[in-house]
Amino acid sequence: MTSPRILAAVTETERETFFPGRQFDELKGLASSFRHVDPLTLDEAAWVDTLSDFRPEILVACWRTPPLPDDILCRLDNSLRYACYLAGSVRKLVSDKLLHDGLIVTNWGHSISRTVAECGLMMAIASLRRVPYWNRRMYKGDAWKTPETASGSLFGRRVGLHGFGVIAREFVKLVQPFGVPVETYSPSVPDSILEEFNVSRSHSLEALFSENDVIIELAALTPETARIVKEEHLRSIPEGGVFVNIGRGATVDEDALARVAAEGKIFVALDVFSEEPLPADSPFRKIENVLLLPHLGGPTTDRRQDAGAHALENIRRYIRGEKLRSVVTAEVYARAS
Amino acid sequence: MTSPRILAAVTETERETFFPGRQFDELKGLASSFRHVDPLTLDEAAWVDTLSDFRPEILVACWRTPPLPDDILCRLDNSLRYACYLAGSVRKLVSDKLLHDGLIVTNWGHSISRTVAECGLMMAIASLRRVPYWNRRMYKGDAWKTPETASGSLFGRRVGLHGFGVIAREFVKLVQPFGVPVETYSPSVPDSILEEFNVSRSHSLEALFSENDVIIELAALTPETARIVKEEHLRSIPEGGVFVNIGRGATVDEDALARVAAEGKIFVALDVFSEEPLPADSPFRKIENVLLLPHLGGPTTDRRQDAGAHALENIRRYIRGEKLRSVVTAEVYARAS
Repeated sequence: MTSPRILAAVTETERETFFPGRQFDELKGLASSFRHVDPLTLDEAAWVDTLSDFRPEILVACWRTPPLPDDILCRLDNSLRYACYLAGSVRKLVSDKLLHDGLIVTNWGHSISRTVAECGLMMAIASLRRVPYWNRRMYKGDAWKTPETASGSLFGRRVGLHGFGVIAREFVKLVQPFGVPVETYSPSVPDSILEEFNVSRSHSLEALFSENDVIIELAALTPETARIVKEEHLRSIPEGGVFVNIGRGATVDEDALARVAAEGKIFVALDVFSEEPLPADSPFRKIENVLLLPHLGGPTTDRRQDAGAHALENIRRYIRGEKLRSVVTAEVYARAS
Repeated sequence: MTSPRILAAVTETERETFFPGRQFDELKGLASSFRHVDPLTLDEAAWVDTLSDFRPEILVACWRTPPLPDDILCRLDNSLRYACYLAGSVRKLVSDKLLHDGLIVTNWGHSISRTVAECGLMMAIASLRRVPYWNRRMYKGDAWKTPETASGSLFGRRVGLHGFGVIAREFVKLVQPFGVPVETYSPSVPDSILEEFNVSRSHSLEALFSENDVIIELAALTPETARIVKEEHLRSIPEGGVFVNIGRGATVDEDALARVAAEGKIFVALDVFSEEPLPADSPFRKIENVLLLPHLGGPTTDRRQDAGAHALENIRRYIRGEKLRSVVTAEVYARAS
């Protein structure tokens, strides 16, 4: 196959973090002709002019890349074939019409999953140790432990995973040295996968929540799973247990979660919310035993290079005419937030 | 051997947490005669009367047990042979004179090491993710991430352990799934141990600090290691790196650490301090990128049962005339804080 014309429309920061070291040179080396534009320097007209002028076959895009107009394929005489999106949700970049018209779109897929799992592990242990409390009270205060100070460990706990996709599987790997039993409620995942990961099946959401101490919320968001985690589930977590959400905020009845959290019997750690940014008046911001993060699950800045390497590999596959990974299909697009 | 007379001088909370479930009955079952006293109900005179009246061969003691008078062995006609201390430092319970006079003393030894390692792992990941900052700013605030928000992962980092005792070895097990290279500076530990744990040797403290991103301080405190970690070491940690102290505060020049931490190039997470409780005017309490915990390393409340099981096993060994574990020798006593 001939080498493609590649346009990388990414900011300097995106370039440096997704393609550190010699990675950007590798990207250039894959192109017959290569251009890099910083989208922060372009208005909408200049953006379309750039596309029309350069006529890329592959567009490398990221968070700050301007949207592709719905008629762009036609305007470029169908020279644009593949939008390689470095990050996650492609909704700001492309409409579903462009997918329907045949534009190939990929995103960072599972290249970031291990960092999300890492965040979940840390949030669980930090919650059991009461880090949110001590971190606030020891800073600019005089707090110190008393004989009554309680703290908890992950050792000896039972872990329940709601959902068993790639992040959950990475989580199981990270939690291995703790020797804790892991259960999952994930009806669509076959027994063979659970056996491979040495994870037990929980046969209902009720059982998952009431029979485990540490619940990790990782269910995919679909019309069926929206607000599927209800007050009764949250209230059934054993006292001193933890609810960690590193999946999607909207799978949980968040009003109920705020009520249960405020009672103080369980610890709650949230990286995701149905409304992001989390509103300033969110009740979660006022509850002592809640650890809040602003959707930092993954990838961390220093691991964007994993997503960059994933993109490079996809472009190589495209050039070789091989199957791409992490293709955003119409179905994936419809589900994404 | 005949069963010993056992006196357990522990509070209700100590009893419930160190010997949950049927464990306290197991302890009773080992004795020919058993008595439990709550030290919170005793003054000093009543304490000595209790000892004189019951004449235990084994004393099970914990944080709130009153000190043993220096002449207690003589006053009990040498019936007291073994003080099984459930916790760590025995200095409040016994003087070195009692050790010299032949009283056997054990403590929780390494039964708690894995929970300390767990705390260190969490502190490292939490620091890389900037949890101290977000936990404070999202609570009662309106903070949310911006395009400039940075965060870090343990994946891809180099880990340096100062000291390679049991906690460090437990840490290596926990960090295994991250696939990170681990080095240690610990001159007294033989190559065979490092090979067993797949850990590389660092040949100087300078190399350990300058060539690793995540430093875990775990050196034993001896006259030689007091304040051995100096400003030059701390300043050589690569930018964005982390210094975690879960060992002893006094191995570090804490004034220098506060200066380096305040510059913001590294993250610092401290569970131990040369002066505990940490003074209200400690500079650490005012530095944004420092995670502070009030010496919660180990064991957590829910894992005190591990120390209880360790004590039970030692009492069984004592009865069978076998070698005890975690014996507090004169040397150990002299080193302890």
